[in-house]
Amino acid sequence: MSTPKRIAILGSTGSIGTQTLEVIQSHPDSFKAEVLTAGSNASLLIQQALYFRPDTVVISDTDKYAIVKEALKNEGISVLTGSEGLSQAIDIQTVDMVLTALVGYAGLQPTLHAIQAGKPIALANKETLVVAGAYVMRLAQQMNVPVIPVDSEHSAIFQCLLGESSDEIEKIILTASGGPLLNFTTRQIEKVTPAQALNHPNWDMGAKITIDSATLMNKGLEAIEAKWLFNLEPDQIDIVVHPQSIIHSMVQFVDGSVKAQMGMPDMRLPILFALNYPGRSPASFPRLDFREINQLNFSYPDKKKFPNLNIALKALRQGGNIPCVMNAANEVAVTAFLQKKISFTGMPEVIERTIGQASYISDPGLEDYFASDLEARKIAESIVSQFMRKI
Amino acid sequence: MSTPKRIAILGSTGSIGTQTLEVIQSHPDSFKAEVLTAGSNASLLIQQALYFRPDTVVISDTDKYAIVKEALKNEGISVLTGSEGLSQAIDIQTVDMVLTALVGYAGLQPTLHAIQAGKPIALANKETLVVAGAYVMRLAQQMNVPVIPVDSEHSAIFQCLLGESSDEIEKIILTASGGPLLNFTTRQIEKVTPAQALNHPNWDMGAKITIDSATLMNKGLEAIEAKWLFNLEPDQIDIVVHPQSIIHSMVQFVDGSVKAQMGMPDMRLPILFALNYPGRSPASFPRLDFREINQLNFSYPDKKKFPNLNIALKALRQGGNIPCVMNAANEVAVTAFLQKKISFTGMPEVIERTIGQASYISDPGLEDYFASDLEARKIAESIVSQFMRKI
Repeated sequence: MSTPKRIAILGSTGSIGTQTLEVIQSHPDSFKAEVLTAGSNASLLIQQALYFRPDTVVISDTDKYAIVKEALKNEGISVLTGSEGLSQAIDIQTVDMVLTALVGYAGLQPTLHAIQAGKPIALANKETLVVAGAYVMRLAQQMNVPVIPVDSEHSAIFQCLLGESSDEIEKIILTASGGPLLNFTTRQIEKVTPAQALNHPNWDMGAKITIDSATLMNKGLEAIEAKWLFNLEPDQIDIVVHPQSIIHSMVQFVDGSVKAQMGMPDMRLPILFALNYPGRSPASFPRLDFREINQLNFSYPDKKKFPNLNIALKALRQGGNIPCVMNAANEVAVTAFLQKKISFTGMPEVIERTIGQASYISDPGLEDYFASDLEARKIAESIVSQFMRKI
Repeated sequence: MSTPKRIAILGSTGSIGTQTLEVIQSHPDSFKAEVLTAGSNASLLIQQALYFRPDTVVISDTDKYAIVKEALKNEGISVLTGSEGLSQAIDIQTVDMVLTALVGYAGLQPTLHAIQAGKPIALANKETLVVAGAYVMRLAQQMNVPVIPVDSEHSAIFQCLLGESSDEIEKIILTASGGPLLNFTTRQIEKVTPAQALNHPNWDMGAKITIDSATLMNKGLEAIEAKWLFNLEPDQIDIVVHPQSIIHSMVQFVDGSVKAQMGMPDMRLPILFALNYPGRSPASFPRLDFREINQLNFSYPDKKKFPNLNIALKALRQGGNIPCVMNAANEVAVTAFLQKKISFTGMPEVIERTIGQASYISDPGLEDYFASDLEARKIAESIVSQFMRKI
């Protein structure tokens, strides 16, 4: 038995983070949690640290530093804080791979830091590539750092491309569950509450991605992520609604052959695949059973009912800083919707108006992304305030 | 542009043979028909020769030799005949790959000859591996000759295994269309005519394989073929009925991930893949369109209604010369059914009784396969005669 691969989990207390720890727990000979980081959930971070005995933990919220430090003081576990602490933890020499499971734009800087440190990336933060895909993938190539997707759709495509040549891809077909509102009428959608939108039929995920799934923005973000991960043109990316979430995505090759990756809708599978790559590790997670799967369905997304998908696909074609602006506006819009400041149908309006008002940069550098993100958030928040005054 | 790959097509006038020529015709820069061979269809062989200008043609039926020789006398195309002629043609130095599309047991000897000649094999004759899989695959390994499957199911599995490690296969899932009689009642099946059984819903194939498809023997033969091609244990082979024939087969890996290969039910796709391997060649054949595919269905085969499947899966587990005996009995039974000598439900009876009466050899050599095949045919034919006396 070789020594376990030592993993830094950025965002260990979130949905992907806790599922990654389940994978590590069920494969103790293969993986070790070397670094755990959390935003502000000190109590769960402490529990995780005591159980998994990492080398280092990071609590980003400096107000919680003392609590974590105190709880772990005699445990031989280093405790760091702030973005400086996060960077230090990534740099630790015994970290073999960095799994980035931070939510939203916050994932960008630590992912860049990990690439610069030469650490292989298991990428569970799609916004990193949505915002700055050109920059991130160029850096990864320069540093010769593999970026293994954790998103189930991108893991599916990655798996379908094993042993294939990327210049033989005709197109990819991202499957979409359609989210919790797939069969809602336009009228019902106008009145959707956060609780309804958070009720995903297949996947148990964090709040941000579940709302993105309900608006289909998530599929748009995934299209942009796929463009950068697999070096595709916008018209090589197709989206098909597949409500059962059994086929996680597909690749069509130049000869017309299509490969699909399938599995139970269980994030532990793509997490395990990413941690273990290259190669597969035996796992006892539940299997697909064609005795139970009587049928798989397919349809095309209703872009009128879910305008966010079109907004994202347009941003994908426009390029430049537009996806970055769109992502920032979407983060503001989702938060505002969850806080009941705007309606479900207010979200696309906030995003579109933000894109209309933000400065356009055709070939942004890293500093431009930071500036665009900030500007877009300000614009989006001001639009949200206008909405609230109207209500 | 590199020079075209020069192909010997054994069985060029059959269903797979003519479709292989369509593939070659549509990819003239990639492939050239170097050798064409036919059993007795002299007129089509002559047509093909005049169009594709091979180096050599073989007409196996010596009675037709003079006709073919005369027709091609001033064309600069060598004409050979008999099994000796077939062997000579395979040996031609300019043949880069041999596609074996002979029907039934007749495919075994020429395939072995091609392997011994060190020619890569595109295998479209499943009986070769059903009868003598252990021997054939061992020889191919010794000679370092790749055996690329052409059967759509095995091509699918082969494609799903690209870039994967074969010891990470948990199981394969062969999909079955269910054939033309899938929804017939037991009573209807008793009275099925050859015309009904030949009416396949998805695939346009030769008569022998279409009847095998109606009895589900074809899926049993494929299970045995898969065992040898992919080095599997019998319990690693699962069979699922999938009436649309869109998913051509699947592989489940040790981590629970499943990969499927999909495509239009068009044999030109796996033929092109096999000819072109390694790598894919652009093709303009029709694409899958998820605008049209609303659903894919799955169910388990009804082994009571289609006893041939169980007979074959039992033969797979028993091993030795049983698959060889079963295959011979099945060939006799299918011919007898097509000649209306026995009923549809008479076929499994002929096969089971033949297996019961034939000598069992646990570890057969090549000569044993020839002897077993002969013995089984005699037994099966005598059983067919008994049936006829009863009618």
